[in-house]
Amino acid sequence: MFKIPKHQVAGHQAIDGNLGPLVDDSGRFYKPLQDDERGTTELAFYQSFSSKLPHHIRRFFPVFYGTQLVEASDGSGLRSHLVLQDITSNHLNPSILDVKIGSRTWYPEASEDYIQKALEGDRLTTTVTLGFRISGLQIYESKESGYWKPTRKEVKSFSADDVRLVLRKFVSSNLEPEPDCCFASTIYGGCSGILEQLLELKAWFEDQTVYHFHSCSLLLLIDKESVLHGRTVPFVEVKLIDFAHTVEAEGVIDHNFLGGLCSFIKFVSEVLTDSKASTIEASFN
Amino acid sequence: MFKIPKHQVAGHQAIDGNLGPLVDDSGRFYKPLQDDERGTTELAFYQSFSSKLPHHIRRFFPVFYGTQLVEASDGSGLRSHLVLQDITSNHLNPSILDVKIGSRTWYPEASEDYIQKALEGDRLTTTVTLGFRISGLQIYESKESGYWKPTRKEVKSFSADDVRLVLRKFVSSNLEPEPDCCFASTIYGGCSGILEQLLELKAWFEDQTVYHFHSCSLLLLIDKESVLHGRTVPFVEVKLIDFAHTVEAEGVIDHNFLGGLCSFIKFVSEVLTDSKASTIEASFN
Repeated sequence: MFKIPKHQVAGHQAIDGNLGPLVDDSGRFYKPLQDDERGTTELAFYQSFSSKLPHHIRRFFPVFYGTQLVEASDGSGLRSHLVLQDITSNHLNPSILDVKIGSRTWYPEASEDYIQKALEGDRLTTTVTLGFRISGLQIYESKESGYWKPTRKEVKSFSADDVRLVLRKFVSSNLEPEPDCCFASTIYGGCSGILEQLLELKAWFEDQTVYHFHSCSLLLLIDKESVLHGRTVPFVEVKLIDFAHTVEAEGVIDHNFLGGLCSFIKFVSEVLTDSKASTIEASFN
Repeated sequence: MFKIPKHQVAGHQAIDGNLGPLVDDSGRFYKPLQDDERGTTELAFYQSFSSKLPHHIRRFFPVFYGTQLVEASDGSGLRSHLVLQDITSNHLNPSILDVKIGSRTWYPEASEDYIQKALEGDRLTTTVTLGFRISGLQIYESKESGYWKPTRKEVKSFSADDVRLVLRKFVSSNLEPEPDCCFASTIYGGCSGILEQLLELKAWFEDQTVYHFHSCSLLLLIDKESVLHGRTVPFVEVKLIDFAHTVEAEGVIDHNFLGGLCSFIKFVSEVLTDSKASTIEASFN
């Protein structure tokens, strides 16, 4: 039984008869392969990445189960889909952040048309200024308030300050009037928190000359409620997704991704530092 | 007595009646202030940087002695010049590499005209692909052969492999037929070598949110012959120069410079690793 994903925050969506990804009940995510070069590139990536990446880095990528012919969501009939791990399965109320990393989503090998369109998007969003842009998000607040999920248009117009606010809300229990950042130390901090995972990725990017990940997203998924269900720390997952524009590195590190990742790390670490400072302040009052 | 610098490898040059920098015998370098915003920006940078930078980072910048009215080299009369430390003074035969860091030399605050021109230059050189480009160089070989100093046109058309070759020649005593890389371990390696200095800069760039250094160059100056004159290791200097497009960082790290710097570090470290490997190989033969 294929269903439309409940927790998709960015990318093409399988609603209103459009072509988009599907999920099933067994925890698998079916991503339709695009007919053009993007489909070929993404499939080639998934078919080869696990043999090319060091073992400790593979956990940052979704598990790949091969391809499968599936009825496309747009009613166009059978179509080849990538079968991937559905990262959101087993989570009732996941908060998700999709962050497109890099100050440039275009690359020299792309068509001039793609380059101009991508460049325009990069200049209109925080991509050029911050080295990354938020592509989509949903933040679970509570049973009563549900999710905070800004529209695509709102997300596209995020400023640097909006990004800072989102990163604070992401680890808060109460988002308004001021995000309380009460999960900052356990979700961003800690030895298996987001910051540590990002630093592990960074160390790899300083050295790896296997891939250049253009227009690739960092997906942060957290389950703040998992603490209530017997876990001592909230569930935290960091994954890279979207490889339709991933090319071979030809002996050069992915300086575009690395620079953007370092900028994002700085933003995350500032939320952590600020929340520590306010905790200390509060304990003195 | 003002003279045309003997060892300038990039930028405007004071020859054939053009406007360019001058030097004197006391070790000072006079850079004409441009009339437009570039001049204002560069002067503002030099007037404020020393109070804004941590102490251990200041050594990567030329000493600034203020401004002085000097007869311009193009015969246009008195003009305000930045008075800077002449890094090449006291060196008879310095080898110099000017590396423009960043995969983007344009920036959102610049004029559309500047952006389009800079973008074109970035795409035609290794700036986009490698995250840096060599802007100029001279490599001293020997009394007999003198310097290897490719023309501007040649430098502009450098490929990734040309860059690798330059970085090998830079630390060689014999450049042809194969660079011997005999100075790699002392110039790139060692606790005060180029790699260590670049890593120190990198650590600062991962954190600093003071400046964004667009179109700024890393100047590497070495004096291979200094070993012959009583020094135990060759003279090595790493400096940042050219701040006509340096803007305030507004709370964001300079991910563009940092990414390019990390890419350059990888290139340098590969020469070092390869030269170590061949030394070990040689000692087994």
